[in-house]
Amino acid sequence: MNSFGQKFRVSLFGESHGRAIGIVMDGVPAGIPLSEQDFTEDILRRKSGAKGTTPRIEDDKPEILSGVFGGKTTGAPLTVVFRNNNTKSSDYEIFKVMPRPGHADFAAGVKWENFNDPRGGGHFSGRLTLPVVAAGVVAKKIIGDVCVNARLVEVGGVSGGEEQWRDVLDQAIKDGDSLGGIVECSIDGVPAGVGEPFFDSVESLISHAVFSIPGVRGVEFGDGFYAARMKGSEHNDPIISDSGECGKNGAGGVNGGLANGNPIVFRVAFKPTSSIRKPQQTYDFATGSIGTLEIPGRHDVCFALRTPVVVEAMAATVMADLMSR
Amino acid sequence: MNSFGQKFRVSLFGESHGRAIGIVMDGVPAGIPLSEQDFTEDILRRKSGAKGTTPRIEDDKPEILSGVFGGKTTGAPLTVVFRNNNTKSSDYEIFKVMPRPGHADFAAGVKWENFNDPRGGGHFSGRLTLPVVAAGVVAKKIIGDVCVNARLVEVGGVSGGEEQWRDVLDQAIKDGDSLGGIVECSIDGVPAGVGEPFFDSVESLISHAVFSIPGVRGVEFGDGFYAARMKGSEHNDPIISDSGECGKNGAGGVNGGLANGNPIVFRVAFKPTSSIRKPQQTYDFATGSIGTLEIPGRHDVCFALRTPVVVEAMAATVMADLMSR
Amino acid sequence: MNSFGQKFRVSLFGESHGRAIGIVMDGVPAGIPLSEQDFTEDILRRKSGAKGTTPRIEDDKPEILSGVFGGKTTGAPLTVVFRNNNTKSSDYEIFKVMPRPGHADFAAGVKWENFNDPRGGGHFSGRLTLPVVAAGVVAKKIIGDVCVNARLVEVGGVSGGEEQWRDVLDQAIKDGDSLGGIVECSIDGVPAGVGEPFFDSVESLISHAVFSIPGVRGVEFGDGFYAARMKGSEHNDPIISDSGECGKNGAGGVNGGLANGNPIVFRVAFKPTSSIRKPQQTYDFATGSIGTLEIPGRHDVCFALRTPVVVEAMAATVMADLMSR
Amino acid sequence: MNSFGQKFRVSLFGESHGRAIGIVMDGVPAGIPLSEQDFTEDILRRKSGAKGTTPRIEDDKPEILSGVFGGKTTGAPLTVVFRNNNTKSSDYEIFKVMPRPGHADFAAGVKWENFNDPRGGGHFSGRLTLPVVAAGVVAKKIIGDVCVNARLVEVGGVSGGEEQWRDVLDQAIKDGDSLGGIVECSIDGVPAGVGEPFFDSVESLISHAVFSIPGVRGVEFGDGFYAARMKGSEHNDPIISDSGECGKNGAGGVNGGLANGNPIVFRVAFKPTSSIRKPQQTYDFATGSIGTLEIPGRHDVCFALRTPVVVEAMAATVMADLMSR
Repeated sequence: MNSFGQKFRVSLFGESHGRAIGIVMDGVPAGIPLSEQDFTEDILRRKSGAKGTTPRIEDDKPEILSGVFGGKTTGAPLTVVFRNNNTKSSDYEIFKVMPRPGHADFAAGVKWENFNDPRGGGHFSGRLTLPVVAAGVVAKKIIGDVCVNARLVEVGGVSGGEEQWRDVLDQAIKDGDSLGGIVECSIDGVPAGVGEPFFDSVESLISHAVFSIPGVRGVEFGDGFYAARMKGSEHNDPIISDSGECGKNGAGGVNGGLANGNPIVFRVAFKPTSSIRKPQQTYDFATGSIGTLEIPGRHDVCFALRTPVVVEAMAATVMADLMSR
Repeated sequence: MNSFGQKFRVSLFGESHGRAIGIVMDGVPAGIPLSEQDFTEDILRRKSGAKGTTPRIEDDKPEILSGVFGGKTTGAPLTVVFRNNNTKSSDYEIFKVMPRPGHADFAAGVKWENFNDPRGGGHFSGRLTLPVVAAGVVAKKIIGDVCVNARLVEVGGVSGGEEQWRDVLDQAIKDGDSLGGIVECSIDGVPAGVGEPFFDSVESLISHAVFSIPGVRGVEFGDGFYAARMKGSEHNDPIISDSGECGKNGAGGVNGGLANGNPIVFRVAFKPTSSIRKPQQTYDFATGSIGTLEIPGRHDVCFALRTPVVVEAMAATVMADLMSR
Repeated sequence: MNSFGQKFRVSLFGESHGRAIGIVMDGVPAGIPLSEQDFTEDILRRKSGAKGTTPRIEDDKPEILSGVFGGKTTGAPLTVVFRNNNTKSSDYEIFKVMPRPGHADFAAGVKWENFNDPRGGGHFSGRLTLPVVAAGVVAKKIIGDVCVNARLVEVGGVSGGEEQWRDVLDQAIKDGDSLGGIVECSIDGVPAGVGEPFFDSVESLISHAVFSIPGVRGVEFGDGFYAARMKGSEHNDPIISDSGECGKNGAGGVNGGLANGNPIVFRVAFKPTSSIRKPQQTYDFATGSIGTLEIPGRHDVCFALRTPVVVEAMAATVMADLMSR
Repeated sequence: MNSFGQKFRVSLFGESHGRAIGIVMDGVPAGIPLSEQDFTEDILRRKSGAKGTTPRIEDDKPEILSGVFGGKTTGAPLTVVFRNNNTKSSDYEIFKVMPRPGHADFAAGVKWENFNDPRGGGHFSGRLTLPVVAAGVVAKKIIGDVCVNARLVEVGGVSGGEEQWRDVLDQAIKDGDSLGGIVECSIDGVPAGVGEPFFDSVESLISHAVFSIPGVRGVEFGDGFYAARMKGSEHNDPIISDSGECGKNGAGGVNGGLANGNPIVFRVAFKPTSSIRKPQQTYDFATGSIGTLEIPGRHDVCFALRTPVVVEAMAATVMADLMSR
């Protein structure tokens, strides 16, 4: 369903080209200073406009509908909505007949018997990560000194930073193709013992939240998949202080599903953007055979560029929930 | 917490050396034939005894306490328990003073103020995966024709099968060290549309369940982390039939969080066993300095060998829940 | 928390004099025809204006923010909001110093350390029942032929109807006092077997939802409290047909927590309105002694008059949830 | 479903004549002293044997399967089971053909397509309140100084105590009939502010839990149904001290769904026992007409006599959950 969390619980709603998208946050402690300006910075980090992102700039103005009085949270549910103002719904009906490869068109059509809003991906749009970012802003305030930082560490197979992956981006733009990327996130300052065995382990909840982000293909903690190739004597981390500090943090800050006092570190693999300029093959339900589809509109060449703040928001949301319990 | 699922909900309990471990399954449909013998096959697949697993053989006899009458499920909660008969609790108190690297000793001690049962890892023991396997047996019956298959595809960095990784296992046994591994799981026959946006996506729920298994470091679907290095034109999958069939299934059977009608495919990275024969460094809370710890007892050299059936059980549990909704 | 339901789940938000109140409904099936006009009838039944209700008329215009496309539900979360346009927030600060008898002022102030929005009762206002009514409209569509009917059967101790209780209402208006009332609700057409033992019995879920309505003091099913004074031979209901029909329906349509195929019948006791014109005693936190409080504004003399449609909404919400499982 | 609670969560299982009944408690804080002897007192209060209860004495010996180590709770799930030793399953098959008036036979048979365990009422048996009592014992330890007290205040329409209702009990025994009763429960020492708007109000959660007890027909708080007949000036309670003390406590200790610092007081109506010695009419599915049923076995003439400790357990369970949040 569209809710997540037990004590800090978020409920997401909206469709890409509907009236509005938004999120209700329940379990926000009373007395936290909050204004609409507080959302600006993180919303800007998600915004498009940079190289490799769509040139279409959305108006992402948050409106707080409830839960704040006199500049402070009230303890009652906090609701933030974003109006969808500049939607241009071109003919999305075609995607019911010729479902786009990599998108939810086909599966959503089956699930909701084609009553789903097809415009801009509807409820499955990456636009839904905007209210997620809003929840992240509030979650970060709740967890206080705990610090969540995510950054892109790889684009199109090239690690490093903007300098390094400029060339592959340029090439993909030229080719009408798209690229994926890898985001690394670190959560510093989580006290040892946070997390709930068996099913609400730190990794379980973080991966649950992160795999909800459209386009995620993998999540790994600490040494991650590489750990499967290590020996125990290499992967095991000696505890070196009475605060539980580990030398290498190959466990990514979690043992037995519980925070162990070290930074919680995980990586997220994002697939390349599904909508590309290149013509693609897909099944044509009108003709009953495979046809060629060209996807109109302007799209991110690498949407992963915009995701670090979304990953942060998910991580903060999980920590706000776990630490409030 | 120790419950998982909404419509098919499992509640896990027990400690490694306590009286019993078990699981309560709520939401089991009435009328499914079930006997204690039905658990045998999957329990055997989890059993130790093979090369690379601990020579200590546990008695894993399931007892159905409730929910079955006249050989069929009743619709009321189904409870299966396993007595812990052959426990030898050596001096685990030492692990409160010198927490084992890679284990939950330190974090659990902080969380539960050292009241946690330390014997055999207590509630954090891999033994807890035994009732998980029992739930998987029931879940498989619930999902009927949907077929869940997991197998080990890599041990200690060597892919293939038993033949291929015999050497690395022998070496690790000789060295008193341990190995990790990678399990691949496929779920065939899930109808398109199964899954719930936004937060209860197929990937979210599977990763949530799978990251609850002790020792998991990463989960990836379809092309997984490799997808981050592909171009959209490579990763995108043309739909090639009216049932939604995809040519390459790089999405791992999921689009927009919903099953797309193709096999759901994911891989799980298991770390090397934390308990090794080699002496290790760890903090000694008695002396206030780093000391050397030797872990007694007999342990799996590669516990990943025993996990495919556990991964299957988690996958089946998730599908039973999602498909019952 | 502010969510209720498992499969049809509503999340309520808003404060009486904040920007808006609203509700998110998750689990609405796709393809149900729905427009903003569909809410009119039930909203009118809750509206004030009749004798015994406040002369202040609120603007109760619903806006559907998400979940509807082309006049039909999409399957994605359905959000309805109501702007609070005509709020006149007189000095509510006084109620933090002199909490109103019968209101949540004192308890909410303690809970949320006086950060709660005090205007018009904030999140504790009866105004929050407006989005509940909106959810009821959708729930009624979901349950289809199942018919929910609530009506006022007693006001100020007088049973009957408008004719009968006109005099006590007039007297209470004259006295600056207030009255309570009793609502009876019947749910017809629920198939036998609906309900979930042990904790999600039909009575448990209905009473849970109904006791959330501000001002409820009691809930009883079938013969209710009177059943405690009956003999088994009187209270027991012979089953008289193969559809499970009972002669007297003293069980109120529920046995063992499950619908038994008869109408589900329950009664709800509403207290008299807490805000009265008469001066009242209460503790004055400024002076540290008991003082006299006069409550300004215009209030319902008997808010129970407006509640039948709210009780219906709660009953329909519960049935939509139980019948969707 | 068979789970209840968010932070202190209980999961109930078992059938009256199955192998065992039991309960898993999740969210129990670590370090609480607990032994099997601690359950004795409350279990004895639920036991039969007194006048008006069944002469059949069950063996109610609790076994702690998990969650306790060295005499203290570990923080992991706490499981208590009771073996069903002395069951005599006479021919319950007849109740599938001739469902007993007042019992769940018909509704459960429809729900679970007659796969439900019919022996002794199966999962719908009052015997399931035994593990509820066990949970209550643990819950009472969790809430510490908060004191829960329930007592029978009325039997067969006669208020008072054992002396007063001896005659009606004797008469009912002689007549082969049964009686109902009313239990009053008080929870003292709950801090103001406990409870969660909107849907997890104190009344909502208590009524939810209490209506799960088989045979409950009504629940009311403070002045209860009588409040509907009072004027606001009578029912409203002046606050008379800075701790929020109310003079009359007609609100039953709750305002706006939150504890207001006064004792929480509620009353529960229990129906007369459904199984009576007198012959009864019911539908005979074999003949397709109404027939006469005689119910064999020995039953409580007034099971309400055994319920105060069950009501206490439910109240304590709710408070343990709310106060742990």
